[in-house]
Amino acid sequence: MTTPLTLHPHRALPADPAVRDIAVRIYEQVAGLPLISMHGHVEAQAFAENTPFADPAQLLIVPDHYVTRMLASQGISYDALGLARSDGGAVETDSRKIWRTFCENWKLYRGTPSRYWIEHELVEVFDVHEMPSAESADRIYDQIAAVVASDDFRPQQLLDRFDIEIISTTDPATSDLAFHASIAEQGLGERVVPTFRPDAVFQIGGPAWTREVDDLAAVSGIDTGDFSGFLDAIRERRRAFVAAGARASDHGHLRADTTPMDPADAAALYARVRAGERPSREEAFAFEAHMLFMTAEMSCEDGLVMQIHPGVLRDHHSGVLETYGKDKGYDIPVPVDYARGVQPMLDRFGRDPRFHCILFTIDETVYSRELAPIAGTYPSVRLGAPWWFLDSPDGMRRFRELATETAGFYNLSGFVDDTRAFASIPARHDLSRRVDAGYLANLVAEHRLGEDEATDVAIDLSTTLPRAAYPPIAH
Amino acid sequence: MTTPLTLHPHRALPADPAVRDIAVRIYEQVAGLPLISMHGHVEAQAFAENTPFADPAQLLIVPDHYVTRMLASQGISYDALGLARSDGGAVETDSRKIWRTFCENWKLYRGTPSRYWIEHELVEVFDVHEMPSAESADRIYDQIAAVVASDDFRPQQLLDRFDIEIISTTDPATSDLAFHASIAEQGLGERVVPTFRPDAVFQIGGPAWTREVDDLAAVSGIDTGDFSGFLDAIRERRRAFVAAGARASDHGHLRADTTPMDPADAAALYARVRAGERPSREEAFAFEAHMLFMTAEMSCEDGLVMQIHPGVLRDHHSGVLETYGKDKGYDIPVPVDYARGVQPMLDRFGRDPRFHCILFTIDETVYSRELAPIAGTYPSVRLGAPWWFLDSPDGMRRFRELATETAGFYNLSGFVDDTRAFASIPARHDLSRRVDAGYLANLVAEHRLGEDEATDVAIDLSTTLPRAAYPPIAH
Amino acid sequence: MTTPLTLHPHRALPADPAVRDIAVRIYEQVAGLPLISMHGHVEAQAFAENTPFADPAQLLIVPDHYVTRMLASQGISYDALGLARSDGGAVETDSRKIWRTFCENWKLYRGTPSRYWIEHELVEVFDVHEMPSAESADRIYDQIAAVVASDDFRPQQLLDRFDIEIISTTDPATSDLAFHASIAEQGLGERVVPTFRPDAVFQIGGPAWTREVDDLAAVSGIDTGDFSGFLDAIRERRRAFVAAGARASDHGHLRADTTPMDPADAAALYARVRAGERPSREEAFAFEAHMLFMTAEMSCEDGLVMQIHPGVLRDHHSGVLETYGKDKGYDIPVPVDYARGVQPMLDRFGRDPRFHCILFTIDETVYSRELAPIAGTYPSVRLGAPWWFLDSPDGMRRFRELATETAGFYNLSGFVDDTRAFASIPARHDLSRRVDAGYLANLVAEHRLGEDEATDVAIDLSTTLPRAAYPPIAH
Repeated sequence: MTTPLTLHPHRALPADPAVRDIAVRIYEQVAGLPLISMHGHVEAQAFAENTPFADPAQLLIVPDHYVTRMLASQGISYDALGLARSDGGAVETDSRKIWRTFCENWKLYRGTPSRYWIEHELVEVFDVHEMPSAESADRIYDQIAAVVASDDFRPQQLLDRFDIEIISTTDPATSDLAFHASIAEQGLGERVVPTFRPDAVFQIGGPAWTREVDDLAAVSGIDTGDFSGFLDAIRERRRAFVAAGARASDHGHLRADTTPMDPADAAALYARVRAGERPSREEAFAFEAHMLFMTAEMSCEDGLVMQIHPGVLRDHHSGVLETYGKDKGYDIPVPVDYARGVQPMLDRFGRDPRFHCILFTIDETVYSRELAPIAGTYPSVRLGAPWWFLDSPDGMRRFRELATETAGFYNLSGFVDDTRAFASIPARHDLSRRVDAGYLANLVAEHRLGEDEATDVAIDLSTTLPRAAYPPIAH
Repeated sequence: MTTPLTLHPHRALPADPAVRDIAVRIYEQVAGLPLISMHGHVEAQAFAENTPFADPAQLLIVPDHYVTRMLASQGISYDALGLARSDGGAVETDSRKIWRTFCENWKLYRGTPSRYWIEHELVEVFDVHEMPSAESADRIYDQIAAVVASDDFRPQQLLDRFDIEIISTTDPATSDLAFHASIAEQGLGERVVPTFRPDAVFQIGGPAWTREVDDLAAVSGIDTGDFSGFLDAIRERRRAFVAAGARASDHGHLRADTTPMDPADAAALYARVRAGERPSREEAFAFEAHMLFMTAEMSCEDGLVMQIHPGVLRDHHSGVLETYGKDKGYDIPVPVDYARGVQPMLDRFGRDPRFHCILFTIDETVYSRELAPIAGTYPSVRLGAPWWFLDSPDGMRRFRELATETAGFYNLSGFVDDTRAFASIPARHDLSRRVDAGYLANLVAEHRLGEDEATDVAIDLSTTLPRAAYPPIAH
Repeated sequence: MTTPLTLHPHRALPADPAVRDIAVRIYEQVAGLPLISMHGHVEAQAFAENTPFADPAQLLIVPDHYVTRMLASQGISYDALGLARSDGGAVETDSRKIWRTFCENWKLYRGTPSRYWIEHELVEVFDVHEMPSAESADRIYDQIAAVVASDDFRPQQLLDRFDIEIISTTDPATSDLAFHASIAEQGLGERVVPTFRPDAVFQIGGPAWTREVDDLAAVSGIDTGDFSGFLDAIRERRRAFVAAGARASDHGHLRADTTPMDPADAAALYARVRAGERPSREEAFAFEAHMLFMTAEMSCEDGLVMQIHPGVLRDHHSGVLETYGKDKGYDIPVPVDYARGVQPMLDRFGRDPRFHCILFTIDETVYSRELAPIAGTYPSVRLGAPWWFLDSPDGMRRFRELATETAGFYNLSGFVDDTRAFASIPARHDLSRRVDAGYLANLVAEHRLGEDEATDVAIDLSTTLPRAAYPPIAH
């Protein structure tokens, strides 16, 4: 009655036998390389305290918005999936029941990267060898629970098991970096590093902005009462992040606009909002743009690589936001005007040898039209790997096809994963290496590239380029 | 001298032999399934009166704007193709001559879906076995004419021959549904159903709006003198459509905007235009958006599935509109802001279990960026099948590749044809099943899906999903 | 130590053996056809004076912004590449050194069309048979230098060697066409023709506009003091271009807008700017749009085909523009509103049998959404070949897949190259023929087109269609 679950060694490689043979040879050269994971969302606390992972549902379902949104899209309530309600209302707490719901609906994931990643995790990480189903749910639950309970399955131990060379957490500007201090004391300071994410203090129109800026003052010890103090506090936090091993900042605004404001106007707007006035929507966008411009200037000074992840309309459903909070699957991409958006920043800093930025998108239309041309000419710019919904077999293949001919391979970031699902990191890197091997094998089979060169490129995309995109900063 | 016309059993399946073998096996499981045709444009009158079809030119060329636009694009006049002129001017009336023009220009259709569909129709429906050409034109004309003259070739008989489980017509809000009453009397009421299309009464800036709203009052028996009466008349017609078997409404506005107006403002605008004032362009857009929002509310009440087909700039050439009327090939797609457009509607109704909507597009850029993320999270939303220009081998393949990884298969409508060319319906469904079989076979060949699962999905896309997307309404 | 460089006979053809066999047969029928090169950027002077080409670096690197931008994107300065500075500052003048820099960085071009073209040129044109590298740089330099020095390697001789049937230069409206007169005197007037490019006199907001319009008066002998004189001068130059063999005009505005101004407003704006006033940004756009509309009117009168190449944000980095001038790799595409942009022009002239225009894009999103539907219905419009960044193996394949199903093959321009790199012209045509052969072979392998028809289409795309797209004008 049970259906076996196996991972075919040639999965996600091209179907054509001749192309696949080449792809297998290329893949074999990169399959065992270490993982560079410079855009992660695992909490620093997990590494600092080496916390054991929770039960299967709390580990693999509840926190993964790819997984829960698919179930919700078919009418299964977030309550039934155990997502906490902000009104304190009762939700499902029986993890085994949540797990069963997931397994019963396994077919919903057909054709999706979630299915691909989870299969990889089940077999490779959890030693599960049957397909999820109503019938197998409990057996799989028990097997995962047993693995998770093992002392070998702690975050720090997994760093070795997964061969993670370096991993980054994502930390707000207001973080005191205490967990990173603890990580450093345990000798992992060069391997687990923070990333500086100041969105909440840049989004002057946000509901909690005042509190955020107060917190920034508290953590930096610098009065943020006026704009100049605010900028000093930002600079101080960046220095603290660099000291803690950070290599990059990250920015997730709605727009890619980087137009600077007149400094006096920016200061006046800051003062007004600090005094309790609510900025208009356009003022808030202008301030965010100004802060991206200022960030580029600071990057030149302190060396943090500037990552931009724009173009997501967050919290598309206000009821979900209110009841279940942010990051619950209701974030919808919108078009991004990248060419004009980053122009002010690049006009000023784009050819400055001290500046480094990486541009990401989930609006595929800008790959060939805007981002590859920009990355293919500005020395400061690298084009980031396929992000979020696009970190999938077909999404990654389209990226290669749309970006490579204009940007080449050497203006790319190489693979960058982006997940809070720690156990899925090896699956994501492995899939990327397979898709790249397939793309490169096709170039070889069409006599557009030599196989030795293709193998070089595969290695570069896996390790050389990500290492180069996020260089360590002397401190 | 004649060139034989045959349909290869493996047409439109993948070229790679190993993938094709899998695709053939999958295709064979779905090739014989019945057709669900829930977005048709055949006239209800044709079914009600079981009208014999016209001659080959009047059947296959004159009314098909795919066919006539291609000839016109190469300089053949609409007059020569027999399209009626609104100025009563003389046009070609010799159907045999029109047919010859078409056959002489057969090469223009190379690489197009029209060619694919027509070849299928010629062989499978009309028993024609030679390629159209100047030389073969008359023989083919005679063969088609003979088939069309047969009593087996009436609309009602074709329902059986084509194995159409259910077909929908498209009917204006002002329709009295008399033909559907007659269809029901003939015992076909559950098989041939209407779809409620209120565009003409929602488009307050349209040239004939006042007459349309007068007609709405006449057919509903409800005074449409004020906005409240207008809404009541709409509700009455929806009830009448539901009683006649309708399962859906359909909306073809330029924008996807669903922002509600303040009810008092909507009523005031309605009153002003009803009194003869001409609304501004922006007022007209605002009213249409408001009516989409109101339609969602009504859908929750009466169960009609709401189909949205936005983003077409109609009547791009004013001279063609003036002389030959609407739907003459001069409808050009434009970008659609779907993410922000449907946000007000989905914020209010998107998680209401009574609400069901299907989103279509011919702006391919929104598949992966906006529509798959929306359909992949909102339980009320299904992503419609590739529409219009995209209902083609490459168009459908791109849809699968761009939508599946984010939306999965189970948030899709399954195949929905969209044509006034009745005889082409089997060809369109068959082509879709072939393209899906090819896409799924590739997933199998790349070890991303099991063949048994792929076969399940193929069946679901052909029948299970379209049935579920348009459920019958108890009445 | 040296790596051999060879061109595989099946390069850029499909990898699948069965499809490739078909592709080879199709390709063999078109490989030897003559080249139609109607959108070139080689200088007329080179043909008139039959100037010997410069050294390898000055021939293949310094003037090719595809090549220099890739090196610059990795931090190599334009100074080191020998690009002239407008401030007269010192730049590298040792061509051998520039050539070495290029060869040392050969890997940067992996996966790019530059790599493909240059390999073709090295082997086929320069008889080089080793891969560029630090080690081989000097040997390759010497080999190219020897070829270039030969009298057989002059522009006029290359016309025969490359089998160029006709080639167009691109000439400003203010050109006196003296070089073309000389070309005609040498008997090449039908083979090397000018193209009328009036951007500089249409861009009323440009920095040198006044001087340009003064020059226009000087060359035409018509006073451009008022708008009516300006239009007359334009008409005169168009006549002069036609007399010199021109077949087309070319227009590279930022937008595709063709909305006509009120003639009095246009005249008044012209007068104000002529008097020294600076137009607003929106006024400048409006004037450009008006001039596109007027150009369509003039095209109906004199028969010049109107080419539109919109949507490029030029000179994205002001510092590069200031120091190194225009066309230095900092031109970034932006979205184009084509459907609404060309509507005024096509509404007026789009069905006029005297009007012919060709629409190009580097915004791929408009292929299937806007351009194929427009070209597939308006008799005056042909859809131009993939332009610029898209003139690449994957770019051309995507074009076929996105445009053919809606526009067919016969509403396309056929292949149009676009380069100032004369020696790369055969490589570009050859690559296009290979990609088309592959696309067509796939249609054949999928039983969507007969092989005989596919071969016909390949020939049409190579020669018949480009000849028809740019017909000679009786004069």
